[in-house]
Amino acid sequence: MTLDTGERLRALRVTRPLVHQITNYVVMNETANATLALGALPVMAHAPEEVEEMAAVAGALVLNIGTLSEHWIRAMLLAGHSANRAGVPIVLDPVGAGATGYRTETARLLLDELTIAVVRGNAAEVATLAGGEAEIRGVESVSTGVSGAGLARTAAGALGTVVAVTGPVDHVSDGQRVVAIANGDPMLAFVTGTGCMATAVTGCFLAAASDEPLYAAAAALVCFGVAGEDAARGASGPGSFHAGLYDALYNLDPDGLDERARVSDG
Amino acid sequence: MTLDTGERLRALRVTRPLVHQITNYVVMNETANATLALGALPVMAHAPEEVEEMAAVAGALVLNIGTLSEHWIRAMLLAGHSANRAGVPIVLDPVGAGATGYRTETARLLLDELTIAVVRGNAAEVATLAGGEAEIRGVESVSTGVSGAGLARTAAGALGTVVAVTGPVDHVSDGQRVVAIANGDPMLAFVTGTGCMATAVTGCFLAAASDEPLYAAAAALVCFGVAGEDAARGASGPGSFHAGLYDALYNLDPDGLDERARVSDG
Amino acid sequence: MTLDTGERLRALRVTRPLVHQITNYVVMNETANATLALGALPVMAHAPEEVEEMAAVAGALVLNIGTLSEHWIRAMLLAGHSANRAGVPIVLDPVGAGATGYRTETARLLLDELTIAVVRGNAAEVATLAGGEAEIRGVESVSTGVSGAGLARTAAGALGTVVAVTGPVDHVSDGQRVVAIANGDPMLAFVTGTGCMATAVTGCFLAAASDEPLYAAAAALVCFGVAGEDAARGASGPGSFHAGLYDALYNLDPDGLDERARVSDG
Repeated sequence: MTLDTGERLRALRVTRPLVHQITNYVVMNETANATLALGALPVMAHAPEEVEEMAAVAGALVLNIGTLSEHWIRAMLLAGHSANRAGVPIVLDPVGAGATGYRTETARLLLDELTIAVVRGNAAEVATLAGGEAEIRGVESVSTGVSGAGLARTAAGALGTVVAVTGPVDHVSDGQRVVAIANGDPMLAFVTGTGCMATAVTGCFLAAASDEPLYAAAAALVCFGVAGEDAARGASGPGSFHAGLYDALYNLDPDGLDERARVSDG
Repeated sequence: MTLDTGERLRALRVTRPLVHQITNYVVMNETANATLALGALPVMAHAPEEVEEMAAVAGALVLNIGTLSEHWIRAMLLAGHSANRAGVPIVLDPVGAGATGYRTETARLLLDELTIAVVRGNAAEVATLAGGEAEIRGVESVSTGVSGAGLARTAAGALGTVVAVTGPVDHVSDGQRVVAIANGDPMLAFVTGTGCMATAVTGCFLAAASDEPLYAAAAALVCFGVAGEDAARGASGPGSFHAGLYDALYNLDPDGLDERARVSDG
Repeated sequence: MTLDTGERLRALRVTRPLVHQITNYVVMNETANATLALGALPVMAHAPEEVEEMAAVAGALVLNIGTLSEHWIRAMLLAGHSANRAGVPIVLDPVGAGATGYRTETARLLLDELTIAVVRGNAAEVATLAGGEAEIRGVESVSTGVSGAGLARTAAGALGTVVAVTGPVDHVSDGQRVVAIANGDPMLAFVTGTGCMATAVTGCFLAAASDEPLYAAAAALVCFGVAGEDAARGASGPGSFHAGLYDALYNLDPDGLDERARVSDG
């Protein structure tokens, strides 16, 4: 299977798409830096007065519910409707769905009201949204009853979007096909916001080429995973790994990417 | 004196407690990363709709008033009452108490309304809350009239909590006993949010074992101070020190901790 | 031309002025760390209940509209009026002016209502405020019709403030004189918030000596540019560059600064 990851990254760096992100306070700086390091342009804006205008001119819109409050949900809906009208693809990160009723309901609201291109979450978040069983501790997935591949396929079918379930192995599905991605490094779990960064990177790839969201999402996770592998080399812990992750995203070599991609049919 | 710091850290890494943090915008990413690097799990949530649910299942609740506004105070009270009902220990960081009336009053309100296990602040903040004299510039303590040991003891008595006063030497007291901790590095003062990180780490240790808050708080400051010492080696300035601090927290060796602890009766 | 940059930095490190910053969520940690690394003291506060008190005792006030909402604008006006009454100089960073009507109008409102000492922005933001033509993508300047020197001079005349237009070469003008500063490194464009940091550093220099805002702003940009040059040496990408930038600000040697300053009449 080839995702043309190298070619997609090349295109992204040439077009430098604008990725509008309405995301949580914890990771705003991190997802902006990941976006810049990869080669796209981030913009953060959440005021109801401006989100429609901004989303309409973006290449993709990222919605992340990591630190919710009422006026942010309103802004997400305004931005999302504007993106839908303009044909701008949306990636949703349902951070902590399952951890509190408020997060679960908000994620469902956004999925009901908007046309979402890709949902990127951990196993517990996705299982929650797909109506399954899950154990979650805060925003960390502890366990679910099904395999990643089955979960991604089921959730994609249930939600009517592409679903990316990330973990030690990532699984991306459109409800029929499943792509498994084994790139990455365990150290990613010791830096906050790496899931959110994976979502932002997914937004970047959708912005560069949104015709095939399954492959765009899978290519994004390959890139992010390969960058994690590169960052782990020479890292002494999560702090140096974190700095190295931006270096690695910036230095990703499109030529070697397809060879390094550890993808298979899920 | 032994605080069993190594044993406490071992327990923390096994149980991986969830630490709910309602903290300021400046340091959210930093305290989440310190929590993860140490071995616990952070969750940030501030919406009135969900804080009670989240706080009730956490191992500890951290309240930090570094960038206040009205709806955050309301969320802190809701979360705090929920934590109190569930027996979840609370750490309060009164950032900037003494710098503006609003901060002083808010810190006092939280202390009045909630049962707080530990207050962690700098000398000026603690002196302000204990009714003493203090000089503060923004959120930095400039001077107070009393020694750290005396201040910690007096404040603990006045506030009816364990009080940790951090500075070149930290002092932790329950109103009777005082533990002095001389670990740390001057470079900690050149990275924003290191005080807030010390508070988050205190929350982690309380979550792992809350039966003896005096020792949990002291052990937390030993760990954070030792990590600061490790980070300072090889650092070229505050940027590399900051990255190194997470590496050091992650790499803390429980076996050597009690020997490295520079603690004494205050 | 000499800006006495070394002497200004020396004074800043001795006086350690307090710089009150009402800035965007994305960069709060970063501008606080840049302020600390340089040698000044940052404080972030945005509650209407406290901003007047805080601004009045600060050495400078930084207003940055990078992630706007209504209650933040209200806080900026309250803080700004308080700063004006107390003679505290204000630096305005009109992040994204031109990108949405809301940002353009807010930047104009602040300029109309307050006495601003320095505006620091990219070419598109400044051109927008000066009534010219500009192409902006998100918060990145793409192109403007005029040169940096002409733009800075025209904008300074039109706005009645000192204007600093940053880019590959920075231009600072008071409407008559123009200082061009060629220090810096292309990697600054791959880290989010470096423009905001330049604004915060400008605030630090104004706080240390506000009698001559043109020179204070120019000296700030020399320092920030030289730090960028130092950080670029040995950096492997934007992550290590970012950490290195704080190291470099901290290690800036006042003795060599005037020699390293690449300044000319613009």
